[in-house]
Amino acid sequence: MFEEIGFIKNPIATGMIGGGKGSQIGYSHRNALARDGLFALKAGAFDINPENGRDFGVSINIDSDRCYADYQTLITEETKRNDGIKALIIATPNNTHYPIAKMALENGLHLICEKPLAITLQQAEDLQRLATEKQAVVGVMYGYSGYVMVEQMRQMVRNGDIGDVRIVNMQFAHGYHASEVEHDDAGTKWRVTPEISGGSYVLGDIGTHCFQMGQYVADLQVKKLLCIRQSFVESRAPLEDNAHILLKYKNGAVGSLWTSAVNLGSAHGFKLRVIGDKGSIEWWDEHPNQIIVADEDNMEKIYQHGHGYLHESAQYNRIGGGHPEGFFDSWANLYRRFGLHMAGIAEQFADGKRWFPSFNEGIEGVKFIEKCIASADNEQWVEFD
Amino acid sequence: MFEEIGFIKNPIATGMIGGGKGSQIGYSHRNALARDGLFALKAGAFDINPENGRDFGVSINIDSDRCYADYQTLITEETKRNDGIKALIIATPNNTHYPIAKMALENGLHLICEKPLAITLQQAEDLQRLATEKQAVVGVMYGYSGYVMVEQMRQMVRNGDIGDVRIVNMQFAHGYHASEVEHDDAGTKWRVTPEISGGSYVLGDIGTHCFQMGQYVADLQVKKLLCIRQSFVESRAPLEDNAHILLKYKNGAVGSLWTSAVNLGSAHGFKLRVIGDKGSIEWWDEHPNQIIVADEDNMEKIYQHGHGYLHESAQYNRIGGGHPEGFFDSWANLYRRFGLHMAGIAEQFADGKRWFPSFNEGIEGVKFIEKCIASADNEQWVEFD
Amino acid sequence: MFEEIGFIKNPIATGMIGGGKGSQIGYSHRNALARDGLFALKAGAFDINPENGRDFGVSINIDSDRCYADYQTLITEETKRNDGIKALIIATPNNTHYPIAKMALENGLHLICEKPLAITLQQAEDLQRLATEKQAVVGVMYGYSGYVMVEQMRQMVRNGDIGDVRIVNMQFAHGYHASEVEHDDAGTKWRVTPEISGGSYVLGDIGTHCFQMGQYVADLQVKKLLCIRQSFVESRAPLEDNAHILLKYKNGAVGSLWTSAVNLGSAHGFKLRVIGDKGSIEWWDEHPNQIIVADEDNMEKIYQHGHGYLHESAQYNRIGGGHPEGFFDSWANLYRRFGLHMAGIAEQFADGKRWFPSFNEGIEGVKFIEKCIASADNEQWVEFD
Amino acid sequence: MFEEIGFIKNPIATGMIGGGKGSQIGYSHRNALARDGLFALKAGAFDINPENGRDFGVSINIDSDRCYADYQTLITEETKRNDGIKALIIATPNNTHYPIAKMALENGLHLICEKPLAITLQQAEDLQRLATEKQAVVGVMYGYSGYVMVEQMRQMVRNGDIGDVRIVNMQFAHGYHASEVEHDDAGTKWRVTPEISGGSYVLGDIGTHCFQMGQYVADLQVKKLLCIRQSFVESRAPLEDNAHILLKYKNGAVGSLWTSAVNLGSAHGFKLRVIGDKGSIEWWDEHPNQIIVADEDNMEKIYQHGHGYLHESAQYNRIGGGHPEGFFDSWANLYRRFGLHMAGIAEQFADGKRWFPSFNEGIEGVKFIEKCIASADNEQWVEFD
Repeated sequence: MFEEIGFIKNPIATGMIGGGKGSQIGYSHRNALARDGLFALKAGAFDINPENGRDFGVSINIDSDRCYADYQTLITEETKRNDGIKALIIATPNNTHYPIAKMALENGLHLICEKPLAITLQQAEDLQRLATEKQAVVGVMYGYSGYVMVEQMRQMVRNGDIGDVRIVNMQFAHGYHASEVEHDDAGTKWRVTPEISGGSYVLGDIGTHCFQMGQYVADLQVKKLLCIRQSFVESRAPLEDNAHILLKYKNGAVGSLWTSAVNLGSAHGFKLRVIGDKGSIEWWDEHPNQIIVADEDNMEKIYQHGHGYLHESAQYNRIGGGHPEGFFDSWANLYRRFGLHMAGIAEQFADGKRWFPSFNEGIEGVKFIEKCIASADNEQWVEFD
Repeated sequence: MFEEIGFIKNPIATGMIGGGKGSQIGYSHRNALARDGLFALKAGAFDINPENGRDFGVSINIDSDRCYADYQTLITEETKRNDGIKALIIATPNNTHYPIAKMALENGLHLICEKPLAITLQQAEDLQRLATEKQAVVGVMYGYSGYVMVEQMRQMVRNGDIGDVRIVNMQFAHGYHASEVEHDDAGTKWRVTPEISGGSYVLGDIGTHCFQMGQYVADLQVKKLLCIRQSFVESRAPLEDNAHILLKYKNGAVGSLWTSAVNLGSAHGFKLRVIGDKGSIEWWDEHPNQIIVADEDNMEKIYQHGHGYLHESAQYNRIGGGHPEGFFDSWANLYRRFGLHMAGIAEQFADGKRWFPSFNEGIEGVKFIEKCIASADNEQWVEFD
Repeated sequence: MFEEIGFIKNPIATGMIGGGKGSQIGYSHRNALARDGLFALKAGAFDINPENGRDFGVSINIDSDRCYADYQTLITEETKRNDGIKALIIATPNNTHYPIAKMALENGLHLICEKPLAITLQQAEDLQRLATEKQAVVGVMYGYSGYVMVEQMRQMVRNGDIGDVRIVNMQFAHGYHASEVEHDDAGTKWRVTPEISGGSYVLGDIGTHCFQMGQYVADLQVKKLLCIRQSFVESRAPLEDNAHILLKYKNGAVGSLWTSAVNLGSAHGFKLRVIGDKGSIEWWDEHPNQIIVADEDNMEKIYQHGHGYLHESAQYNRIGGGHPEGFFDSWANLYRRFGLHMAGIAEQFADGKRWFPSFNEGIEGVKFIEKCIASADNEQWVEFD
Repeated sequence: MFEEIGFIKNPIATGMIGGGKGSQIGYSHRNALARDGLFALKAGAFDINPENGRDFGVSINIDSDRCYADYQTLITEETKRNDGIKALIIATPNNTHYPIAKMALENGLHLICEKPLAITLQQAEDLQRLATEKQAVVGVMYGYSGYVMVEQMRQMVRNGDIGDVRIVNMQFAHGYHASEVEHDDAGTKWRVTPEISGGSYVLGDIGTHCFQMGQYVADLQVKKLLCIRQSFVESRAPLEDNAHILLKYKNGAVGSLWTSAVNLGSAHGFKLRVIGDKGSIEWWDEHPNQIIVADEDNMEKIYQHGHGYLHESAQYNRIGGGHPEGFFDSWANLYRRFGLHMAGIAEQFADGKRWFPSFNEGIEGVKFIEKCIASADNEQWVEFD
């Protein structure tokens, strides 16, 4: 059951890079960190423009002298302070994740990093080595994986409720960028700019989310994959705004993954369906409190969050069945786990023993993108390992 | 658009009566108050058992000496302190709302009160007089009315998008209490105990929610109503666990309302459908980010929260379309409005100018229950005014 | 299982009154009668205008000399012939059902009559006496009751799968006539004309359908009812285009029924939900091949037609699961039963032993309308018996 | 609008090969041919066992002497008769389609053939040459393409309502054969037997249905495709019970197609989604009377069959909106077109001018299967032409 506890008297002092005025992802992080009293945002370099960053920080009650011009200054200055930050949130465009994370880890900070963890696999592995050395806790923000019903799916699969997994269908295909909206939208602009975003747009931006969740839930190892990708809005080339991937897993199962920003009519379209030889389970992030479970008779049943028939490990709903939990609750659940680990008290609480996305997911995500690009560019199957 | 602002440097010191260990409603209030930095929970009398209340308060980091044995002590002691609370949350069983609210108002506190505001209409009107005299801000916790899409419905109706309203269908009919669950569930137990709950169970517990929302959205005046009510679990008599109500509005429109705790298969079943001569709109709290809008051609369209085509006043989504907001976000939206008013800065912010449920809703809710009981007991239509 | 059999070598010669050019209901009857080889349409008086009627009859390959000017001539002439009709279909406006049916029964014909069977209860009872005397088979066209999944519901209720019935929610509320469409639509015109339609519009036109199905499935006896009705399109007064009814059953259960022609956004909205103390079942005619069944755990399961887990008596699907059956299949199922009885071979076939709507349903339907009108006009509860 | 007409006085005498006792597909054909009075079933070789075939024929009122032992005899004898059949329905296992069709065409018969038209592309093209020479009308039974709303989709795409097509998602993935059901089910048994079924199971059995519909609606030319296929029930190897296909079209659009018999929880799962640069449309065969249409604003609208806002060419609904049409109605619509052509009166009627599936579809279907197998077996992309 969900435990409402004041875990620690003094929340973990936390800083943030990026995520300034108008940033949806910035607000998501700030909202999540404040939910369980484990973190307190004390410092930030919120904007590439130092003045804007400071103004924004002050507007949300950060002390003016802890609003820094850039991440280097922030890390340098904060690590000098007695009350300096112990954890850093990275909410910047993709290409900056690596250098910021590297410096933060070198300076002994815990990290919560937006995905992708890095642009190249080597960078990601570098960070992992450094974090291990420094005993840092690192959370990678695959924020949808904190939903209660995703855990329920995972437990049902592990428990054999649907038998041996045969097919994994993953989809994250929205319709917001079917035309060249980046002209007027900075948040989309950098995502379709190779120098900032890396070698992909939708594969990295959203495809990794459904890939990660498929891996988390179905617990299979990819043997090889094939990808096609397109730039339907031509100016985005070589970055894709649509991609289809087929996967062969080591156990003989197969997967399909569709990711798109041009799927008009879809608000999100993040769906996961796992099919075994005894049943299937399907989840959809737009209505995240239900899963549809089918049995060998082909009958569909609707499982609802917050009900007693769920696996014990899926009993961490913050509010009872019927009342919907949402995006912020999923994030809060992950931040709770990050915080318990960073505070060194994870072992004392059920929530501290739960899984959270970290290097395995971060590295596999980067690898997934690399392999997809290689496959698409050469029109052939690519081994995953 | 949603504004992320640190409205005030020093959050409003707040106390809470009831809502102790394991209370879902208590957590909902505590979660909501912390979301926008406007409130800080500083004191509480969380449990009828003083020791349990203190233990719980301490467990969530309330100072031990501000965990009080009862509401009287809390109000008395806190009003003596320089840093004493300025606002009080009442999250206790129904029959205690009135005395607590009365004492709180007399001592100059702002209030956030669970519904029903009181047991009798006279009590509710008493409180209103007192609040006016003391210039206190009072929010009554019709917590579902903070959803963005409920505001969208309201604006569409006011804007004439569906023409003149003809029919209002209201429903809050769940299936959790189809058998005598109160044996093992204290939260249900008091709700079916007349001395604590007042003269009704589902009418007051959930029926008022859909009635209030129907009033808020359709903006009509009830002329008369007819109610039937049953105690399908017989031990609950005379309190009903199911009721159907028909309403005639002054403008010639009609309404139907169904509220139930024995509607097996329904997680919540809180639905509102408003039908005009040019269209209709329907909302369902289990999937609160969508409404279904129909036009004169009988065509249904799905409106999603967070999209640019919504009314300007429904553009206060905290997260973009596709990502679901949930129960806690609706509550947070209302607390934000309460807080801006209690801090005296409502006029400076768009959110401060928004509607919130207060005495009108509280009083109409109490009246609704009274009239329903009178009608059901006499098997006849009852005038509303 | 569905049996595909050529039941009889020589189909039952059949005539039709009404249902001429452009009549949806006429085509529905003609389509249904031809489905299982039990009937052959041989004669008709298809239109109030004899020439139009003849032209139409000839256009669908009826012999010109068996296209009659009116029902009297048809019955008179056909009963003289050796190869004359043995069964008559009545597809005319409401006020003519009684005289046509009376003459047909007096002349020894079997009948398939559109609902309502008559305008007054006395007429309906008259017809029943006559039919008994003449040993005529009479089907009353409650055409939705032939769906496989409706039978499944009925069997589940009878089998105790949902325990004792507590609540029956009935609804048939479409949105096609939200404005004065009768100006250009003869089929709607007569329905809102009291002299032709009788004392009601939607109550009789569609409300009786959901009432009949509620009775069929839930198998309860109405004790009393209360009705409100409105003419939202004012020119329809005194006939209603919207009505809400509350029902109290003799066993303590309660019902609600909503019928409307002004429910914009609804293509049909014919729904039935039956709630017991151990579960619930819901059916919707727009997607008639599924029912949603809930159990005591509040979990919803989707039952599909054509699956092996259904009750044996619901295994008469014409096509396997997944493939949808539709409106015409429901009608064909009923016509099959009518035909087996009229051919005197019902006992030899499983389908011949199935229920079909006849006098009980026809009479109860007429009574329902009468009681609703009486209640609405006097604003009070009316005893049903 | 739908025209109810007795097109011809004397229905086309028709024979059937296969489709005997208990055959779902046989009943589907027989039901469809009888719907509009265009065909009369007069002869058959219904079963591989002559005696069973005769018994069945007699049981459905076929003259005993026109129930033949095999297709050769049937064709030989019937073509000798003055009143012999003019059209033949082929409802046998796949490997027999070609020889039967060949002999039938050589003898001057019109044909209605189950898909696949043949096992090899060469066979299919042979049949086309022969039919052209003989001026025979040939319908290939892609039976889902007769739904009204599929026509609506097609017209919307052609009309540019969704702009240029970018993505076509095709799916026909049911869950009935997740285990080795063929042990007890002859209808599945032959489908998984290579000698009878040809080189594929689900690709040919159902995959071709969604491929054909994708082609029909989106009107694109396939450039190349890649396929993976599996035999999750191992005894089915080398025939697949699951396959995923990616397609690249000549105009730059891409497609994905998933076909499966092991998709537990799915009754049919036949879905088509077409996405353009200005909108999208989605259809699902289990609820075939609706399509979901999205516009550039990402808003979804539900179009219903039988409504005035549909394209004129989609106004051939047999029953009005709200009342569902089903599988049999789709088939009847195609049979109507077949019949009008075979009777030589197609030009006189709107329905006779409508498209129906014939050689183009039959040949493309066979080619699709061949290419899929080649791609899957070699793990590489295959050019389509």
